[in-house]
Amino acid sequence: MKHNISDTIVALSTPPGLGAVGIIRLSGKDAITICDKVFFGKNLTQVDGNTIHYGKIKNETGKIIDECLASVFVAPRSYTKENVVEISCHGSSYIIEQIIQVFLRAGARHAEAGEFTLRAFLNGQLDLSQAEAVADLIASDSSTSHELAMKQMRGGFSDQIKELRQELIDFAALIELELDFGEEDVQFADRGKLEELVVKIQTVIRQLIDSFHLGNVLKNGVATVIAGRPNAGKSTLLNSLLNEERAIVSDIAGTTRDTIEESLNIDGIQFRLIDTAGIRKAQDSIEKMGVDKTIEKIANSTVVVYMFDVTETTPQGLWEDIERFLQGSKALTAGSNKIFVANKMDLNPYTKPEAYYKENLITKNNLISASALNKMNIEALKDLLVKTVIDNPQQMDQTIVTNSRHYDALNKSNESLHAVLTGLQSGITGDFIAMDIRQSLNHLGSITGEIHTDDLLESIFSRFCIGK
Amino acid sequence: MKHNISDTIVALSTPPGLGAVGIIRLSGKDAITICDKVFFGKNLTQVDGNTIHYGKIKNETGKIIDECLASVFVAPRSYTKENVVEISCHGSSYIIEQIIQVFLRAGARHAEAGEFTLRAFLNGQLDLSQAEAVADLIASDSSTSHELAMKQMRGGFSDQIKELRQELIDFAALIELELDFGEEDVQFADRGKLEELVVKIQTVIRQLIDSFHLGNVLKNGVATVIAGRPNAGKSTLLNSLLNEERAIVSDIAGTTRDTIEESLNIDGIQFRLIDTAGIRKAQDSIEKMGVDKTIEKIANSTVVVYMFDVTETTPQGLWEDIERFLQGSKALTAGSNKIFVANKMDLNPYTKPEAYYKENLITKNNLISASALNKMNIEALKDLLVKTVIDNPQQMDQTIVTNSRHYDALNKSNESLHAVLTGLQSGITGDFIAMDIRQSLNHLGSITGEIHTDDLLESIFSRFCIGK
Repeated sequence: MKHNISDTIVALSTPPGLGAVGIIRLSGKDAITICDKVFFGKNLTQVDGNTIHYGKIKNETGKIIDECLASVFVAPRSYTKENVVEISCHGSSYIIEQIIQVFLRAGARHAEAGEFTLRAFLNGQLDLSQAEAVADLIASDSSTSHELAMKQMRGGFSDQIKELRQELIDFAALIELELDFGEEDVQFADRGKLEELVVKIQTVIRQLIDSFHLGNVLKNGVATVIAGRPNAGKSTLLNSLLNEERAIVSDIAGTTRDTIEESLNIDGIQFRLIDTAGIRKAQDSIEKMGVDKTIEKIANSTVVVYMFDVTETTPQGLWEDIERFLQGSKALTAGSNKIFVANKMDLNPYTKPEAYYKENLITKNNLISASALNKMNIEALKDLLVKTVIDNPQQMDQTIVTNSRHYDALNKSNESLHAVLTGLQSGITGDFIAMDIRQSLNHLGSITGEIHTDDLLESIFSRFCIGK
Repeated sequence: MKHNISDTIVALSTPPGLGAVGIIRLSGKDAITICDKVFFGKNLTQVDGNTIHYGKIKNETGKIIDECLASVFVAPRSYTKENVVEISCHGSSYIIEQIIQVFLRAGARHAEAGEFTLRAFLNGQLDLSQAEAVADLIASDSSTSHELAMKQMRGGFSDQIKELRQELIDFAALIELELDFGEEDVQFADRGKLEELVVKIQTVIRQLIDSFHLGNVLKNGVATVIAGRPNAGKSTLLNSLLNEERAIVSDIAGTTRDTIEESLNIDGIQFRLIDTAGIRKAQDSIEKMGVDKTIEKIANSTVVVYMFDVTETTPQGLWEDIERFLQGSKALTAGSNKIFVANKMDLNPYTKPEAYYKENLITKNNLISASALNKMNIEALKDLLVKTVIDNPQQMDQTIVTNSRHYDALNKSNESLHAVLTGLQSGITGDFIAMDIRQSLNHLGSITGEIHTDDLLESIFSRFCIGK
């Protein structure tokens, strides 16, 4: 760690800027005594924990900086499990700066980003994956991203991991014990039971790994490309979708000038709608670069909504268009979810949607007959969008991995477990098996922080805001 | 009042935006019971005041919105003298919005701007001038503006006003009693003592009125014009002044394109340095408009720093330049403080500053021999700048009026008192004197809020931020 965690630290915990109230937080063994030196109205060293006291903060010359409330938390009953004082003062940046300065002179130092939560972790208040969830919680901007962060903060899959890890540790200990006996060829660890355990752990880990795609999508928003010919009615569809939800429309300039992203919240899930007007046969090399970028966007998308105008498109024409579109964006063809929107159906009462069906491509399950202008079947489209992300509502109740660091650790742990299995099956010696188990244990342990390095903590907590 | 103050109100009290912590404040007789409906972990209706409790806020379906701390204040021991709960939650705008919504559904309503402080005023926690000081305190951005707001919030001249007002009320009552006796020609109120009192009150009020110029300047910053020929070294002077203080340099586009303002804090006083490169004989009508605006700026300034280059300016030339300058900005000639800076004195060792002296204009008290480039005598210039604002440090210890509403009320009160005096001296009847006394009382009472109208409160508190 760069900094001594036995110091008492101080930081503004509320957002900067003018407000009614600002909260300045102190944590460390001297938090209460340091605060008491400059706080007048009550002897803070004599008060109970979890109590609030009115007083004045004065500087060294006796000048009153502000009338404040001091909330006192006595270790270990605080967020950091250290002594904590929170000063609630008037929300003027001048006053806040003056108060922080007086605390610095009284013996505190500036807190690093995330240092309060780092201390909470180091003092056993929460494990590493819970600490990471605190940052996710603060950044959460939709119902689902909030729910996922809350679940993770309240324990998530930590207990599951810890339990499996303990079983594996026991086996590793037995195998390492065998090694102590060197040439004597004893086997304390039952190879059959070990194999069973590894398979069981792998099953759990694979479920977690599989959940990451959904978790990542829910946390960061569902990249949804809207494609189709220019006159298909895409803008009208966008407006119909957005107006009804009163979504915040933001013109985020994308990687190309032609790519516009807008955000839409459906049932608490954030969809990032991406307009891809740019796909056509490129005229020159600069345009080609733009088209390539668009294709990249599509390749990274989760859902593609392909829209066509039924008054201008024959089934045969549609199939050819789609063929060209899919060829233009090859990465798509395989995995991503496709929704087809037959637009202006109200103007074309004689065409049946069935006419557009094409095996393995366009079916009644992914074709919506709509009128973007008259908002016909817009709700059905929204339902289908949600369904492409979450097949069934129970998925949300299962454990979902949202953190790419955890995802990496699970994958690496899984690889080591695979090596353990292979080793067992080929009958290699205990020392190799023990090594692979240890590696798997390290990766699993890094998720909850049972195994951690200073660099890892540094990289996690430096992303936090100051004051948390 | 537009809104019922018996409602329970809720608002975010911390600045909007991402932060470690957000504070949501509830106030009103039902604040604790409303909060208790959605807060799980402790029965908040059973706890002592000034205590802090950990728990979860859940919505109606039982979903956890956040893990929070609830600070409970039981009436009358709170800012508003009502029941108050402050919820400290994770600083995500999604979470904050969800919590406020759950409180609204549980029976609270959104607080109006300043409504917490309005209630504090209506419930007798602070008087009106103290309430106004709360807003000034939040907006304070320098040592002096902070000190003035703090003084006012801690009572300021309220007590003095209240005392004088009470003495006047006693006289008014006596005179009004006389009126009840109609034709009987009795005199309960000693006219000589009344005259003495009015003179005494006027003396105090005049001191307060006189302090407003200083108060206004200290609160809003000292408008300081830097003038002189283009090559006099003004930019260098500005940089010398600014760099040393590491002031925040902001290029606020002024009323004309030529006017640049920069802020400089000297000894806790904010100086707004205004560069007036634009003054010269106008070439066309558009430029003339710019020059007129600059002259207006100078007319409204508190200090003019006139700078000249001693290597290029003879005393005679300087006097002529200044003559032209003063003619060009007539409003200046009389009152405002002038400082003359003889620049590049280090390059001109043979010229003595005395050579530039001119009676009643340039003297040893307002001429600084400097070198802007070598930072020679920059400190002396700063000292002189502070001295032009505050003649002697004791001024800061006296009562200073900073609020233009108070200034107006003091002036009006003074006019009415003048009418009382004139009436007494000309021996007019008691009913006219009583009327003038009442008017003076109303004006004085409006300062502290003893006399107030809904419109007045509306206009004062609507300028507050939400959540205060």
